[in-house]
Amino acid sequence: MYTVCVRDHFMIAHSFRGQVFGPAQRLHGATYVVDLELRRPELDPDGLVVDIGLAGKALAAVLGELSYRNLDDEDSFRGRNTTTEFLARDVFERISQRIAAGELGEAARGVTGLRVTLHESHVAWGSYEGALPASARP
Amino acid sequence: MYTVCVRDHFMIAHSFRGQVFGPAQRLHGATYVVDLELRRPELDPDGLVVDIGLAGKALAAVLGELSYRNLDDEDSFRGRNTTTEFLARDVFERISQRIAAGELGEAARGVTGLRVTLHESHVAWGSYEGALPASARP
Amino acid sequence: MYTVCVRDHFMIAHSFRGQVFGPAQRLHGATYVVDLELRRPELDPDGLVVDIGLAGKALAAVLGELSYRNLDDEDSFRGRNTTTEFLARDVFERISQRIAAGELGEAARGVTGLRVTLHESHVAWGSYEGALPASARP
Amino acid sequence: MYTVCVRDHFMIAHSFRGQVFGPAQRLHGATYVVDLELRRPELDPDGLVVDIGLAGKALAAVLGELSYRNLDDEDSFRGRNTTTEFLARDVFERISQRIAAGELGEAARGVTGLRVTLHESHVAWGSYEGALPASARP
Amino acid sequence: MYTVCVRDHFMIAHSFRGQVFGPAQRLHGATYVVDLELRRPELDPDGLVVDIGLAGKALAAVLGELSYRNLDDEDSFRGRNTTTEFLARDVFERISQRIAAGELGEAARGVTGLRVTLHESHVAWGSYEGALPASARP
Amino acid sequence: MYTVCVRDHFMIAHSFRGQVFGPAQRLHGATYVVDLELRRPELDPDGLVVDIGLAGKALAAVLGELSYRNLDDEDSFRGRNTTTEFLARDVFERISQRIAAGELGEAARGVTGLRVTLHESHVAWGSYEGALPASARP
Repeated sequence: MYTVCVRDHFMIAHSFRGQVFGPAQRLHGATYVVDLELRRPELDPDGLVVDIGLAGKALAAVLGELSYRNLDDEDSFRGRNTTTEFLARDVFERISQRIAAGELGEAARGVTGLRVTLHESHVAWGSYEGALPASARP
Repeated sequence: MYTVCVRDHFMIAHSFRGQVFGPAQRLHGATYVVDLELRRPELDPDGLVVDIGLAGKALAAVLGELSYRNLDDEDSFRGRNTTTEFLARDVFERISQRIAAGELGEAARGVTGLRVTLHESHVAWGSYEGALPASARP
Repeated sequence: MYTVCVRDHFMIAHSFRGQVFGPAQRLHGATYVVDLELRRPELDPDGLVVDIGLAGKALAAVLGELSYRNLDDEDSFRGRNTTTEFLARDVFERISQRIAAGELGEAARGVTGLRVTLHESHVAWGSYEGALPASARP
Repeated sequence: MYTVCVRDHFMIAHSFRGQVFGPAQRLHGATYVVDLELRRPELDPDGLVVDIGLAGKALAAVLGELSYRNLDDEDSFRGRNTTTEFLARDVFERISQRIAAGELGEAARGVTGLRVTLHESHVAWGSYEGALPASARP
Repeated sequence: MYTVCVRDHFMIAHSFRGQVFGPAQRLHGATYVVDLELRRPELDPDGLVVDIGLAGKALAAVLGELSYRNLDDEDSFRGRNTTTEFLARDVFERISQRIAAGELGEAARGVTGLRVTLHESHVAWGSYEGALPASARP
Repeated sequence: MYTVCVRDHFMIAHSFRGQVFGPAQRLHGATYVVDLELRRPELDPDGLVVDIGLAGKALAAVLGELSYRNLDDEDSFRGRNTTTEFLARDVFERISQRIAAGELGEAARGVTGLRVTLHESHVAWGSYEGALPASARP
């Protein structure tokens, strides 16, 4: 199995609901350094998993939808705790949709799985990985 | 699959027996920077894999059982080479027991797998990963 | 010149005022991974720049005054942009006061300079360094 | 499953053919920081996945076959784009052959899988992972 | 003294002349991960050393002049060994000129010193640091 | 000022005397990842601060004198606490002597300063820096 990974970051404010979160129930924030891994069993005719230029642009576009925002104010997250692992899944879904829409190029439809990792500090990270929805591949 | 990871470290002395170890047969030591990864297919009702505060405390407690010691003097390691990969398995077992004992919270019983990685330098690491023993989950 | 460094982190929300900040004028947040460097020309009688256990506790205490907060609501920052470099200076001053108060031990009065670096992402950091105020040393 | 990893690097020149590569169609180069991961379900009698001294020597030997070269001039790569993911596979095959030849020691025949990751910058990497060819194990 | 740093990278081919370089006399290449540090004793009215958005754009522009090229073919480097430390100085000079030209904003004229570090692998880097030419400040 | 840096590591056992050290008074150990920085104001005729091949060999030789040992048993450290900062100074002196002896090449006599940093974990390091003894330069 081949994998390529591109890295970028975003910065947000948010708060959590639930006693388990302790002081993180207060409004605070985070920098998330994001690793987007794309996997496929065979390379495309150019010798690539995916054009990492396009992958980097798609990742920047997705993170741009989140960055420099207070996630508590975002309709799409209403009633949810935007934990690191929850956000990893959210970025996974947004990237999956862009692959299905052809934004990473036609060859990227050969991608069979993704992993999205959000590093929240030097001592903690969370990730979500899964197969791409069938709809992403013809 | 969701994963969260917390990082900590411990510092020990030890020696190895066997010609394959060369100069490491002499008493020496190591800093191990430890990554504890916890995995589960669905998040708990708070949107978490596990409370990373509790996970960090459990990891610190386990590493506190080992740190600032000469492992050659520990009864539990008698007759064993405490290699990086062996110690990764040992930390895996100690964390598994604490999960089973409820120390990471009731929700942590949803954790289905662990990976423990010990970084021994900037150029070498070892890890052990596996499913959690059935006894850890009701 | 000898230097020791300890690392910790804090997570905050804030916003900036001024067109130069672009989208960062919106409420957002950051994780700051903090390196506290302490310098002195000669070691103390124990062979130390400073007890890094005490240094780590002082750093954790200082960062605890800031972490899990919206800095826009803090009186001490009213009317100021809490940029990375501004916060590095703020942490520098708070640590200096604790050294002067003896919290890092009497031997720490031999420390002649500090540097505080705040890493805001994998591609940007800011720092403040300076000599310790004379009042910190007898 | 146990894993050990050793890290080394190599530095090469090359160019790519295909419009997808944009300016990388020009002759340029890269440093690849290489992580070689070796996996097996049980440790050998010494408590090891593999002798990492021998693993490091084998990796250095393989990278020495590539380093300080213009890959465009290498017969074995003629007509191929030596992308990061392609080179990860190439290093995987070269290491597999050395394991089969016994260069990592007889105990290394217990290794059941490899992963080779090439870090090309602080924001991009590629890898290839797979089971070892049956011929590597008696 | 305040410092801010932004990071980017570039990828080039080159060769060296002189027996001291051994196999690096052959055409090869490198990824250089570049840290640009900018220093000044007091912050500007916005609370900044410099607008890191503009600093990042200037760094990307300078590295774009070098990246995806064979430096052996560049007129400006004719007869020179483009070593890591030599290139660090070259990037230093190019950034200095852009500061003097006002590309990092008028406030950036308060910058009094720069350091440019080029990381060539996980085990080696080179840097050049110095005061800004007087011409950069009114 | 130009700087180049090479990185290597060593692994030792030791114990400390003094209540300030708490549990580290017991026999334990550490991995030290070592950064050796060499500085000079002008490059040599090859465009180098120093031949980093020779610098790396000298560093490996010095660390080989310490590695895989119990420092409590070394005559040269008798009665001393081999703290991180103390060892940084020790490595500094050993490298200085090798430069004076010509082991890094004649051109290395142009080196005017060194910094040696020992990373003991992901959250702590110590260093010693200074001018080279006059005897190192003709």
